[in-house]
Amino acid sequence: MSGTLTVVGLGPGDRRYLTPDADEAINSADALYGYAPYLARVPVRGHQIHYPSDNREEAARAAAALAHATCGGNVAIVSGGDPGVFAMAAAVCEAIETGPEAWRALDVMFIPGVTAMLAVAARIGAPLGHDFCALSLSDNLKPWELIGRRLDAAASAGFVVAIYNPVSRARPWQFGNALGRLRRRLPPSTPVVFGHAVGRSDERVDVTTLDAADGKNADMATLVIVGSRETRVVARPGKPPLVYTPRAAVEVSA
Amino acid sequence: MSGTLTVVGLGPGDRRYLTPDADEAINSADALYGYAPYLARVPVRGHQIHYPSDNREEAARAAAALAHATCGGNVAIVSGGDPGVFAMAAAVCEAIETGPEAWRALDVMFIPGVTAMLAVAARIGAPLGHDFCALSLSDNLKPWELIGRRLDAAASAGFVVAIYNPVSRARPWQFGNALGRLRRRLPPSTPVVFGHAVGRSDERVDVTTLDAADGKNADMATLVIVGSRETRVVARPGKPPLVYTPRAAVEVSA
Repeated sequence: MSGTLTVVGLGPGDRRYLTPDADEAINSADALYGYAPYLARVPVRGHQIHYPSDNREEAARAAAALAHATCGGNVAIVSGGDPGVFAMAAAVCEAIETGPEAWRALDVMFIPGVTAMLAVAARIGAPLGHDFCALSLSDNLKPWELIGRRLDAAASAGFVVAIYNPVSRARPWQFGNALGRLRRRLPPSTPVVFGHAVGRSDERVDVTTLDAADGKNADMATLVIVGSRETRVVARPGKPPLVYTPRAAVEVSA
Repeated sequence: MSGTLTVVGLGPGDRRYLTPDADEAINSADALYGYAPYLARVPVRGHQIHYPSDNREEAARAAAALAHATCGGNVAIVSGGDPGVFAMAAAVCEAIETGPEAWRALDVMFIPGVTAMLAVAARIGAPLGHDFCALSLSDNLKPWELIGRRLDAAASAGFVVAIYNPVSRARPWQFGNALGRLRRRLPPSTPVVFGHAVGRSDERVDVTTLDAADGKNADMATLVIVGSRETRVVARPGKPPLVYTPRAAVEVSA
């Protein structure tokens, strides 16, 4: 009597970004698993049981939810933003590949959501309006040297770069190092956007330049967008500037 | 008596991906502009006037909507997916930068949505679970040589690549050329996902490998995800396979 597992994207903090599809998946679940602050966004409904856990426990959370679903019932794992972008969907797939055969027979669904870089971009204009990369700065699961090479490749090839997980308590210097690395490839005037807690009540979006960007301005709730050579800032009287990357690119040599 | 302009992301086709924020922005608009097939998804409400236009008319559509908003009223431009990803948000910012001074004084808002690559990824597992790029294959607005160099850079650096606009009537050979270029950098077994019309009633998702991928399998409604060296396929008895890119990466040399 096997159940189902649904991995649900909540979008940025506020419920106005929660899609009807995600809302329905949450409503029909008997049990909800997730990183405690994400799970706290979901009101407990009648019969539902919440199983909060710490971050950096993705593998254990995925295993527990899969085991629970295998016993029957509709189980959901909630993720902030989109579950497929540096979040729980990959952890669930990994667990299915390496876990008990029964987990491959489960009905598993993934519900997309608005990921942080889209929410931050929308607050300020269209910095992701042309080719871009999304890169996690966490070196918990990959060597720092690989992250550095990817930053170099992205900047040299003219991609805008959306940086997830710029900083954590255990990773204090990496973001400053990344900015230094990008400064060697991009002009000092390249626009940089710091989106802090976008979609929550304490949200804040700051625009600066690559030479003025300070690694200390990012924390665990920050998503950073570093422009390309094409990214532009449009000043507006009495309003915040717009930052956008034009649809057309002319540069052929990097 | 200046009005407002809101650029709204509808998400993939079905209304179950429309966020409450986007729904509210549409409801409160007096006039709606958009590419005709996207606008057709929005039911006409009482007093609202719809202004459909052709694709490749982004600049003219942005200018008309800005001019309309400057005369007063709440004007919305609708975009499929997310307006900030190869869509109308950049066209609106460009128009504001180059247009009449009055356009800089307008209240302009952007409402994010679920962009195609997130919807396609969710249908098949978590192919975007690690670092990735989003790249438009349209050479209407940038030279093909630049697109080629970006494909090379992304594949060599280990990014998964989400390809928007692989094919159009005016661009029949470019996607096949791109696949050939990627084959020189990536193993023949690299997983490739073709997501056709995802979120619509005729949606179809196919998984193949880079050596077997056929450029003729893409059309204007297709979003293609080409894996990295790390991307894996998990076979499941009686179910479609899962495709995912693990959270951890070990490879340092490309």
